[in-house]
Amino acid sequence: MKPGIPKGTRDFTSKELQKRRYIISKLQSNFEKSCFLPLETPSFENLDTLTGKYGEEGDRLIFKILNSGDFLAEAKKKNPDMSQWKSKNITGSISEKALRYDLTVPFARYVAMNHGQLSLPFKRYQIQPVWRADRPQKGRYREFYQCDADIVGSTSLWHEVSLTLLYDSTFADLNIPIEIHINNRKLLAAIAQYASIENQLIDFTVALDKLDKIGIDKVLEEMSNKGIGQNSLQKLIPLIELSGNFEEKISQLKDILIDIEIGQEGISEMEFVYSQVNEIGLTSAELIFNLTLARGLDYYTGTIYEVKAKNISLGSIGGGGRYDNLTGIFGVKNMPGVGISFGLERIYLVMEELNLFPKSTLHQKQILFFNFGDKECLQALKLIKELRSKNIACDLYPEKSKLQKQFTYAEKKEIAFVAFYGEDEINTNTITLKNIKTGAQKNLSIEEIEEFLS
Amino acid sequence: MKPGIPKGTRDFTSKELQKRRYIISKLQSNFEKSCFLPLETPSFENLDTLTGKYGEEGDRLIFKILNSGDFLAEAKKKNPDMSQWKSKNITGSISEKALRYDLTVPFARYVAMNHGQLSLPFKRYQIQPVWRADRPQKGRYREFYQCDADIVGSTSLWHEVSLTLLYDSTFADLNIPIEIHINNRKLLAAIAQYASIENQLIDFTVALDKLDKIGIDKVLEEMSNKGIGQNSLQKLIPLIELSGNFEEKISQLKDILIDIEIGQEGISEMEFVYSQVNEIGLTSAELIFNLTLARGLDYYTGTIYEVKAKNISLGSIGGGGRYDNLTGIFGVKNMPGVGISFGLERIYLVMEELNLFPKSTLHQKQILFFNFGDKECLQALKLIKELRSKNIACDLYPEKSKLQKQFTYAEKKEIAFVAFYGEDEINTNTITLKNIKTGAQKNLSIEEIEEFLS
Repeated sequence: MKPGIPKGTRDFTSKELQKRRYIISKLQSNFEKSCFLPLETPSFENLDTLTGKYGEEGDRLIFKILNSGDFLAEAKKKNPDMSQWKSKNITGSISEKALRYDLTVPFARYVAMNHGQLSLPFKRYQIQPVWRADRPQKGRYREFYQCDADIVGSTSLWHEVSLTLLYDSTFADLNIPIEIHINNRKLLAAIAQYASIENQLIDFTVALDKLDKIGIDKVLEEMSNKGIGQNSLQKLIPLIELSGNFEEKISQLKDILIDIEIGQEGISEMEFVYSQVNEIGLTSAELIFNLTLARGLDYYTGTIYEVKAKNISLGSIGGGGRYDNLTGIFGVKNMPGVGISFGLERIYLVMEELNLFPKSTLHQKQILFFNFGDKECLQALKLIKELRSKNIACDLYPEKSKLQKQFTYAEKKEIAFVAFYGEDEINTNTITLKNIKTGAQKNLSIEEIEEFLS
Repeated sequence: MKPGIPKGTRDFTSKELQKRRYIISKLQSNFEKSCFLPLETPSFENLDTLTGKYGEEGDRLIFKILNSGDFLAEAKKKNPDMSQWKSKNITGSISEKALRYDLTVPFARYVAMNHGQLSLPFKRYQIQPVWRADRPQKGRYREFYQCDADIVGSTSLWHEVSLTLLYDSTFADLNIPIEIHINNRKLLAAIAQYASIENQLIDFTVALDKLDKIGIDKVLEEMSNKGIGQNSLQKLIPLIELSGNFEEKISQLKDILIDIEIGQEGISEMEFVYSQVNEIGLTSAELIFNLTLARGLDYYTGTIYEVKAKNISLGSIGGGGRYDNLTGIFGVKNMPGVGISFGLERIYLVMEELNLFPKSTLHQKQILFFNFGDKECLQALKLIKELRSKNIACDLYPEKSKLQKQFTYAEKKEIAFVAFYGEDEINTNTITLKNIKTGAQKNLSIEEIEEFLS
């Protein structure tokens, strides 16, 4: 039997893990500096916690876990006539658990379960894998990480300001130049009202969301196909093409949306967030008011964000927004919040592309002690024990092989130094370190090793 | 609908995560100092990678993932007569993936898939959750972490020495006083030979493994029930009751097993490992030659380990051993190795019991800036941005509530300091920090904050 792994999944070796952990550690430290605290939820949830939350397509893509024990007997109890069984209607009888599909629903479930105990506002971050039975393709996996930071229980716009700063500081830490696109769902609602397509708000935003990918002509075509009339489209075009700096855009909007209350609300929220962020100043990110930013999900109700790496066309590497009602689906009302997420897999690709990962690998800090026989090994291990207690990664080659073989092993593993610690060195209480790349070698006293390596 | 989580699973809050991460970081740093490199494998494997590897009971406890799409139609193609369907024989037709049950089989699968590319010996560590459909009970979960370090591709006994040092240094770092029990499967095989029960080696070791829990009488009773005769038991008793220091035990064994080749091999391996470790010296662990240590798994072939916390009866917090053939099940021969694992969940309980976790929590490093209104908030956020860039965790209370409410929030969250940064402070470029626990407060210049906190 030739072993393999399921499609859409990956083994991560140390080199990849080191890079992934590098990104994750930067996210973590920025989250924690902003007083978000970590939460981890179980890998699987009760099936009914997840179903119905992601639309019909989403439900199909949830990985369901088969019940243990005699699941068929249990299913037959509920549905004795097997000839009537269909995959769809029997799933709930043979599966009652499913793998996490995103981090938002488990978070909502957690808040709903514990809202009595939480001091609000509650700020949590969560970095965990999720699973989707999607068709795998380049850059899309069936197991991948999501990284979310949310604040619930507060409607203050200062959170929108803070989250903008969080995007800025995190990507500055990662050295990725970014644009933060910002918009407000209230403005989109107002525009729909202005163009008399209130009842087609979702069709409108879904089409608008594709502007970047397919261009304005295709967007208008899609809107038209969805039944948005010519009059409405004529009113939408100047808004989709709105240009100028922030003040110019806002001033035009103020005129156009003058009679629409939700539009004036959206404008005032946007002005608040934009001006405060501008006043505080961003480290390196560019904040762009993008009236055509729509975001796919329809639970957003206020400010929405999308982050793009500059000069790379890889789509968004982050996104989020404000929502009114996180936990309504679980029977807990009045839980507004705002959150952002970071796209780990794409950030990884951007960092590779821009060559932003630190050069040194774990191997490159290691010392391999050559094996000259058991007597020398014993002395070497004494020294190795001491060095490890000083945080130096080192190891003994386990077999008394020819030196050439030991050397080749070190080379293949990209180990930085080999150590000669034979009879001579042991007697003189010294060690000879050889830099594998440069070939340079040096005899050091034991006390000098630590300094030499740093 | 009242939300819950599946039985045997847990949400981890920041306090628990901080403790779990503390343990994991100590494991990681010790693994990496010993030149083990990380590996992560997918959460699910192909079902046939896992089945048949853990015995019949194990197979039952594997969580299977239901195939996506119209799984019933697919199953009917292979097994048209639904009346003949049984849960057991149909599982493979409706499920082709399953959640990881341990880290050893995925590691074996990885080595078998990549053995051409790996430089041997290959040292990997892996810290990931595994899932078992076990009956949940106190301290036993359906989702829990395993932490394994293995070396494959080498039969050198120096690895046994190194792994003993690794247990020692890691638990010393965690401040947990431990005993490392060590034995050798070759000695157990020799004893079985000596007592003429070679064909009942597994019954013998399985019963012996329970000595700690059920005592010698029950162990002998179980052996007798399994058909081990009175003559054999009489020969076993002095060996089970073997006492004395290391040299005394070895000397008695040398006599008893004098004619048994595998026994002499076991003795010589044990002498090598024990004497080298003794010569190098352990930081704090106690190494105990325990001839009654058996370990449940039957794939071990040489040295075996088990670690116990001193003065706490919580069972083992680590274990491992040498095996001859990791990847034979996947068609790759000659892959000997040796590995140890750390029981994260039990280590956590021991650390709690002994009060060994660091006192400071994430909250306890935070500063909460009181909200005096938008004008002050803007200035506060400027300062907050600066402090965060200096790795100080701080935040703004988002609403302009009564100070008492803001204070109560900080208290409930166990935040260390609240910051007053109102008009006076802004004008004088100072800040007032109040220690919530002690009530002490101090007016500082902005430059003094960093030093004050450290």
